[in-house]
Amino acid sequence: MPIIDGLQYCNWSEEIFREMRAGGVAAVHVTIAYHEDFRETVERIIEWKRRFEAFGDLIVPVGSAEELGAAAASGRTGILFGAQNCSPLEDDIGLVAVLHDLGLRFMQLSYNNQSLLATGCYEAEDPGITRMGREVIREMNRVGLVVDMSHSAERSTLEAIEISERPIAITHANPAAWAPALRNKSDAVLRALAESGGMLGLSLYPHHLRDKTDCSLESFCAMVARTLELMGPDHVGLGSDLCQNQPDSVVEWMRNGTWTRTRDFGEGSKAAAGFPPQPDWFACNRDFGNIASGLAAVGFDQPLIDKVMGDNWLAFFERSFCPASAQGTTDDAQARRA
Amino acid sequence: MPIIDGLQYCNWSEEIFREMRAGGVAAVHVTIAYHEDFRETVERIIEWKRRFEAFGDLIVPVGSAEELGAAAASGRTGILFGAQNCSPLEDDIGLVAVLHDLGLRFMQLSYNNQSLLATGCYEAEDPGITRMGREVIREMNRVGLVVDMSHSAERSTLEAIEISERPIAITHANPAAWAPALRNKSDAVLRALAESGGMLGLSLYPHHLRDKTDCSLESFCAMVARTLELMGPDHVGLGSDLCQNQPDSVVEWMRNGTWTRTRDFGEGSKAAAGFPPQPDWFACNRDFGNIASGLAAVGFDQPLIDKVMGDNWLAFFERSFCPASAQGTTDDAQARRA
Repeated sequence: MPIIDGLQYCNWSEEIFREMRAGGVAAVHVTIAYHEDFRETVERIIEWKRRFEAFGDLIVPVGSAEELGAAAASGRTGILFGAQNCSPLEDDIGLVAVLHDLGLRFMQLSYNNQSLLATGCYEAEDPGITRMGREVIREMNRVGLVVDMSHSAERSTLEAIEISERPIAITHANPAAWAPALRNKSDAVLRALAESGGMLGLSLYPHHLRDKTDCSLESFCAMVARTLELMGPDHVGLGSDLCQNQPDSVVEWMRNGTWTRTRDFGEGSKAAAGFPPQPDWFACNRDFGNIASGLAAVGFDQPLIDKVMGDNWLAFFERSFCPASAQGTTDDAQARRA
Repeated sequence: MPIIDGLQYCNWSEEIFREMRAGGVAAVHVTIAYHEDFRETVERIIEWKRRFEAFGDLIVPVGSAEELGAAAASGRTGILFGAQNCSPLEDDIGLVAVLHDLGLRFMQLSYNNQSLLATGCYEAEDPGITRMGREVIREMNRVGLVVDMSHSAERSTLEAIEISERPIAITHANPAAWAPALRNKSDAVLRALAESGGMLGLSLYPHHLRDKTDCSLESFCAMVARTLELMGPDHVGLGSDLCQNQPDSVVEWMRNGTWTRTRDFGEGSKAAAGFPPQPDWFACNRDFGNIASGLAAVGFDQPLIDKVMGDNWLAFFERSFCPASAQGTTDDAQARRA
């Protein structure tokens, strides 16, 4: 069973990469950009290249399910790049294919605010996908860059699901019915996502959890069970949103970037502005086994546990990262394997 | 009577600067950016610095009404910088003050599409001013950078008028009641603009004119008279949108920038994709006298002609380009002069 995490943004170190190995983590989608423009995103990629050189026995960059399989066979954790905003694109649709060449496999169409493409979950109004957004979705579909709507607002998300000709992802969020954060998703969104073949990564970030840091493993796993009832067995995985060892200055930058001169607290508050502490049953990459055990305790059989822990993401990766023109080939290959 | 043009984007040359002098043009707000990011905008400023050196007997950069007066006294045309989009700001509110330092005096919050700040007139939906837009308007107010909503959509424009603590401008557009282009403005917008102390620059770009290239001087001047009835005598000037000597590749770039892989025709059409020919009574900067004569012919007295030809813009410049903290001082100075 491959363990795949649909999103992390840790303060990367050898310690964390060793924890990935100890936890049996086959692949992690890592965020390389929040507010970075294209050039700054390239700098983040250069930083990752240095990590791949320094810790080549622990981690390896992967851009496809095949490469992920090779990484697993070599006993290393595969790293996939993603952006939590469309800022790396600046205003240039030509950069979609360039970013894919550089390894980007997920891109959110908007972070918390309005972007050139779509609306973020903290705007008062959500007009849906913009003119440029429609063009960029088509181009992302063409090259195999997955649309991620984790921080986007409701209407924009529903329209992205509708407009995109390939399944999209919500890499890290939970059902709002379970924990009513602005960032969590309505049943309508989750149903449309599943019906279109998309993927939801369930989040372990305390602001997305019922009772936040005090959320119990039992409550989380019962929520996973209810989400599978809503979305079916094939469209749910994990997207922990783990931000291990980040200083609070980082969450302040995530929220404020350079767009405001006043201070925005996002999901936090003035009294609790920093990163919230993780629940004790999920503090680092060693702890995925706790979730697998928790799912067994709420009655999941092993094949269903495997789906949630990684198999569903792996199947999604298999069909999502190739160019649209090669999709038939990939589908045939999958059919032959099946 | 100073003649002031609220917007031009010509293919600049000695010929055009000589025509400005021949036409008695005291000042022109020139567009230095459509889709340019900050660095590219700085490059456009460098190009203007070279023009100021090469043609220093004809043109001079001005950033205030006082500098405009000095330019006029020296027999030269004052050049004011503006941007037709917020792209020079990228996503950094800190660049508002930097751009003002570099001479920018007008900035549109959006061009035809959705921006980070506001909605453009070609989007299907207009959710109004965004979270970042509210922050940026406050900062523009603080430093003395005028909000321009010429290409913005209706609700965004009404909200900008409401949110901005200093009067805003629509530097180049006409009443939609006279010529129903998407870019032209409703009576509701024009009334709110006038009530807030803002300025409208009436456009001579054929796509904004009734009967386009065939528009008569009489029809244009009758429209000016009706606009003054709606907005009062103090809030209307000219903003010709003159794009003299530009190749058609430029209007294609204005419309398409780098946001789409398909081709957008904006106010044109596939059959008429290029720049439309100007009406024969306004082909270049020599022709402002035709408009003054046309206004006399529809019954304007000389003081009213002077207001429309430049005095209203001059009064707006006097109160708009200083920092908000200096506004009291400026108002006092104006009161002393009055």
